[in-house]
Amino acid sequence: MVDVVRTKRPALHKRTPAGGAPTAPRSADEARRADASEPRIDVAAVTELLLGTWAQARRQSREMITDEAFWQVPGQPVPEHRERVLGQLRRFVDAGASGRAYPVEYGGQNDNGGNLAAFEELVLADPSMQIKAGVQWGLFGSAIQQLGTKKHHDAWLADVRTLALPGAFAMTEMGHGSDVAAIGTTATYDPDTDEFVIHTPFRAATKEFLGNAALHGRAATVFAQLITGGVNYGVHCFFVPIRSDDGHDLPGITTEDDGVKGGLNGIDNGRISFDHVRIPRENLLNRYGDVDATGAYSSPIPSPGRRFFTMLGALVQGRVSLDGAATTGAALAEYIAITYANQRRQFDSGVGTEEVVLLDYGRHQRRLLPRLAQTYAQAFAHDQLLRRFDGVFGGERDTPDEREDLETLAAALKPLSTWNALDTIQECREACGGAGFMAENRLVGLHHDLDVYATFEGDNNILLQLVGKRLLSDFAKQFTGKDAAALARYAVGQTAERIFHGAGLRRLGQAVADFGSTARSVELGLRAEQQHELLAGRVEQMVTDVASALRPASSLPPAEAAALFNQHQSELIEAARAHGELLQWEAFAEGVAGIEDAGTRQVLTWLRDLFGLWLIEKHLAWYLIGGRLSSQRAASVTRYIDRLCARLRPHAQDLVDAFGFAPEHVRAPIASGAEQQRQDEARAYYAELAASGAAPVSEKSLKKKVTKP
Amino acid sequence: MVDVVRTKRPALHKRTPAGGAPTAPRSADEARRADASEPRIDVAAVTELLLGTWAQARRQSREMITDEAFWQVPGQPVPEHRERVLGQLRRFVDAGASGRAYPVEYGGQNDNGGNLAAFEELVLADPSMQIKAGVQWGLFGSAIQQLGTKKHHDAWLADVRTLALPGAFAMTEMGHGSDVAAIGTTATYDPDTDEFVIHTPFRAATKEFLGNAALHGRAATVFAQLITGGVNYGVHCFFVPIRSDDGHDLPGITTEDDGVKGGLNGIDNGRISFDHVRIPRENLLNRYGDVDATGAYSSPIPSPGRRFFTMLGALVQGRVSLDGAATTGAALAEYIAITYANQRRQFDSGVGTEEVVLLDYGRHQRRLLPRLAQTYAQAFAHDQLLRRFDGVFGGERDTPDEREDLETLAAALKPLSTWNALDTIQECREACGGAGFMAENRLVGLHHDLDVYATFEGDNNILLQLVGKRLLSDFAKQFTGKDAAALARYAVGQTAERIFHGAGLRRLGQAVADFGSTARSVELGLRAEQQHELLAGRVEQMVTDVASALRPASSLPPAEAAALFNQHQSELIEAARAHGELLQWEAFAEGVAGIEDAGTRQVLTWLRDLFGLWLIEKHLAWYLIGGRLSSQRAASVTRYIDRLCARLRPHAQDLVDAFGFAPEHVRAPIASGAEQQRQDEARAYYAELAASGAAPVSEKSLKKKVTKP
Repeated sequence: MVDVVRTKRPALHKRTPAGGAPTAPRSADEARRADASEPRIDVAAVTELLLGTWAQARRQSREMITDEAFWQVPGQPVPEHRERVLGQLRRFVDAGASGRAYPVEYGGQNDNGGNLAAFEELVLADPSMQIKAGVQWGLFGSAIQQLGTKKHHDAWLADVRTLALPGAFAMTEMGHGSDVAAIGTTATYDPDTDEFVIHTPFRAATKEFLGNAALHGRAATVFAQLITGGVNYGVHCFFVPIRSDDGHDLPGITTEDDGVKGGLNGIDNGRISFDHVRIPRENLLNRYGDVDATGAYSSPIPSPGRRFFTMLGALVQGRVSLDGAATTGAALAEYIAITYANQRRQFDSGVGTEEVVLLDYGRHQRRLLPRLAQTYAQAFAHDQLLRRFDGVFGGERDTPDEREDLETLAAALKPLSTWNALDTIQECREACGGAGFMAENRLVGLHHDLDVYATFEGDNNILLQLVGKRLLSDFAKQFTGKDAAALARYAVGQTAERIFHGAGLRRLGQAVADFGSTARSVELGLRAEQQHELLAGRVEQMVTDVASALRPASSLPPAEAAALFNQHQSELIEAARAHGELLQWEAFAEGVAGIEDAGTRQVLTWLRDLFGLWLIEKHLAWYLIGGRLSSQRAASVTRYIDRLCARLRPHAQDLVDAFGFAPEHVRAPIASGAEQQRQDEARAYYAELAASGAAPVSEKSLKKKVTKP
Repeated sequence: MVDVVRTKRPALHKRTPAGGAPTAPRSADEARRADASEPRIDVAAVTELLLGTWAQARRQSREMITDEAFWQVPGQPVPEHRERVLGQLRRFVDAGASGRAYPVEYGGQNDNGGNLAAFEELVLADPSMQIKAGVQWGLFGSAIQQLGTKKHHDAWLADVRTLALPGAFAMTEMGHGSDVAAIGTTATYDPDTDEFVIHTPFRAATKEFLGNAALHGRAATVFAQLITGGVNYGVHCFFVPIRSDDGHDLPGITTEDDGVKGGLNGIDNGRISFDHVRIPRENLLNRYGDVDATGAYSSPIPSPGRRFFTMLGALVQGRVSLDGAATTGAALAEYIAITYANQRRQFDSGVGTEEVVLLDYGRHQRRLLPRLAQTYAQAFAHDQLLRRFDGVFGGERDTPDEREDLETLAAALKPLSTWNALDTIQECREACGGAGFMAENRLVGLHHDLDVYATFEGDNNILLQLVGKRLLSDFAKQFTGKDAAALARYAVGQTAERIFHGAGLRRLGQAVADFGSTARSVELGLRAEQQHELLAGRVEQMVTDVASALRPASSLPPAEAAALFNQHQSELIEAARAHGELLQWEAFAEGVAGIEDAGTRQVLTWLRDLFGLWLIEKHLAWYLIGGRLSSQRAASVTRYIDRLCARLRPHAQDLVDAFGFAPEHVRAPIASGAEQQRQDEARAYYAELAASGAAPVSEKSLKKKVTKP
């Protein structure tokens, strides 16, 4: 594999039409590709655009992982994989790359956005390494940083950064994952000794699925019900040592190993239970709630509910980073599948003997190109999310409203991008046939590792339900007593325009007009503005519909109100998904609107259109039922997508090259040019055989000769 | 894990309403479930129905694999896993279970249907074992049996059966998978020595992805271009020894190891290349083509094309068995996810403190129940496919037409069931949250192993395209010169009524009428007959549309004709998919029509309706655009599905219990009752705490006391 990786990527199907070998007749598509030499994208400029606001941090991280010590070894047994990943984290520290978000006094750089950007790129090396780094610095460390105060930072943050203190983040329990408020672990204050007693009262309260718990963790940030003076003040976080330096469980601590998982097997996930474990009172991470020596509780946030959500919200970066990592993973899959599809040939077209390149098949374009458009949309949307995150956590825009918006945005985007990544990786794997199933070609490993992204850091369905509830509550809050039309318009204000920054659409409308003369009639009515109207209108209508359906709930007995909500749960989740899709589309549109190079803007506008039309096609029945699209226009959506696929096909390689991956990031032999080499060799063999006169004739041609003398 | 497995499954949520523990208040749903005590399904009878025509063979196979020696060990390193699976095959032989389809004189039972039925069940033990058995007895052995003649059977079949002769099936090459006709390996007859010379002329002609090639195979059935007297007679199959008994490559043979794969790592897939390897002329498997000592070629099938497809068709059993194995895999996933969803609780409903069972959430029902309906449909459709297969290969109905129908049916069903299995397993895995990601709970392993089913034994898209072409060619053949309406009606005759056996629908109509009085108004117009009409009408219309669009092709130059076809490739594949869906629905309907027990028939009728409506919902936009459903009726489809989910919810456990899996087949701790035990323990803890008077009060209740004195 290393040999392949070290080989320079051949510039096949890039810039120049392929099939330069004299024996290869140009296919119809190759001719079309040559004709389509304008417009072209400026690959380097698009790479910059995709790398986004923290391009430099991403480049540094990518540069670091060109070292093969950071690469996943497919099939490595679990114990060795775990050790390898731990070693990778040490290298990461040695490279000075850890704890970038921490304050300067603890060796950090106070760089929140850059920290996540750099961290997300690690998925290219080994997602286990990315997530183990996330556990150490993003969860365990962040709990100390975000929920603790200076005494805690002073005590532990430098050691967390250098991995002198590896730790676990002990929130989830066997019995409670999504419903954190209901966890069973207790932290009971004992004023006699000035200690908290951490206890697991029953098996279901065992902390579960924790990275670093099975082997490497020395301490854990443990979420438990804080009880003092006979009162339960709800979930708080405590710093609890769990293991001695020689790796033994401390007294009262029992750790267990989760064993083999569906992926991420470089991480030692495990369970922790506590048998009346005593920790100093000072180990309560007391930023949002404290207990004094007498046992009196105090908090800067009087409302228990708001306090709880504030604490959880302080840990939003996990969701933010998964949105980015999933997007990078999907981009890698697209790079591999499209590069292969541009080289691999199968079946002749019935015209001559030349076999057809996979990407010239209509079906193959349909499978890969809309998902490529989606990956672009995610990249743009993620950069917006990251800017918002950096604004809040860097302190520049740290208001309760901004925090709530950030949490909602992360909860809307993470489900979409993690699901999309799985869908895209699987489609890419299948599009590469048997070769796609070989571990060396990366696609199966990506799917295995990213699988759990859909349910961790918040189950995707639960997150979307949160978003839906936020949409509903804002809806209800702001428009009490107003009329239905005002209500209906609200959702768009909430979801769309705030992110879209108003001017975007107008600039974009202009851009569309510039290229209007080349548009075919079928595309009229499905341009940028209409796409936006359709996508935004859907959010607006769905939120209104659910809100209307739930309106009687307030006057119903609780059981019936719960049943009514349950009846509309799926619709609410779909409304939240529509909201996320709209945000992604808008981010893409905004990204395109800022492009100055005409060729790049043209091609990315097509790609944005493909994304928009693909979303509309997914929900076509909804648009038809609601009368928002006529049958005729709806039918044209699919044709328009086909046309956009054909139009984008010559640009497909440019568009994946623009992800900017080096061979050391890709590593898949099928995307290395080896396929092309084999085909050239086969072609040369047949050409030589034909020239030698020794080639066998086909039975068919013989029969023709016999029957037609 | 073994302990868990050996424990008897608790009869939770079965027959009697759950929550019998005195501390557990009955939830609204539990009350509903109790009320829904009629109708109930007869679980044992449904098990019999699902096990199908070869129930006995399936039971034998399931009984055998209760032995833990047959079970997959998650995370086992690749070399050990390969040895374990080889050992499992030996046990399989010792149990007398191998080669059931072979003639009695070679130790077989001449039982084609039973052979596949038994083989499919092995997926419950370890899909690697299933597929390695399939390579040995189903591919390598079948090539000898189906493509060879008595001399070959006498020489090798008994040893194949006993595993004395392990072998590889060498069809696919690095350069050609789906397009078998274009393979590069040559078999050139040398009359001087009466031998064939097997040769790999270039790297891309290397045989690739072959089970048993990396380690265990001693011989291979090698597909190569048969060349004699300077004429290429096309692809034929040859028996070629590849390895000595001590495991070394024979002279001229080079084998390579494919290494780690995305799944099925108990199989030693690898590559084989040939450097002028000489084999006796008699090693040509000569049922469909022979060469005499002078080098003269002869064949009972004069047309090279028909001969090629006859040879490939003789190997259809691989596709047939994957359809069954994928269905069994999906059923296991549904069993695990639904059993867990009936025990796992998360979030209280806002009514009291009792948390809600996952399957009581509307969203969770939506995720699992339509896929359960689909799995049932596949089971019924698969039994029909298996009966057809047995009829052809048992000789009872072995005509060219029956063979062609069998191949088309297998090509239509295998893509749907293998894709559906992946979708179902993934949804089940996510529905189990983090626990679903643990290897011990089986779901991730099933996904990894079954992933490749979508692209092997025929890439799913290619298979559907074959089906589409068959539909088109029959369409064109039978109706030349007739009018459009007659053309349009054709497709249904082809796809539907032949399988449906006419009477089915009428009997079914009757069944629906029996229950008519309970139907709600929304369901009118979406009953069985309308479902059939909608599904069949879709196939009819889509085939007609593609045929019309392609009609100009015959008068176009080849390049333009190819481009035209390419434009409609996706539509053709979608038409074939619609055809497969119709067949599954019809098989389900036919299965239901034969049920006499009223409760069982009622519940399975709902389930069949859910499947039908779910298919219609997937393609709702198509029905709306074509005016086949009004907006109003289309909107009611989704509501009807929701209603059916609620109606079926109390029967969900019965419906998965009816798959008839023993604990040794399930093995997943989350479906063992352990979750329920943990919850009972937690509940008892809180009850005891409350009774003791030592329970802390909540801060919230404290605040209420303060503000409301």
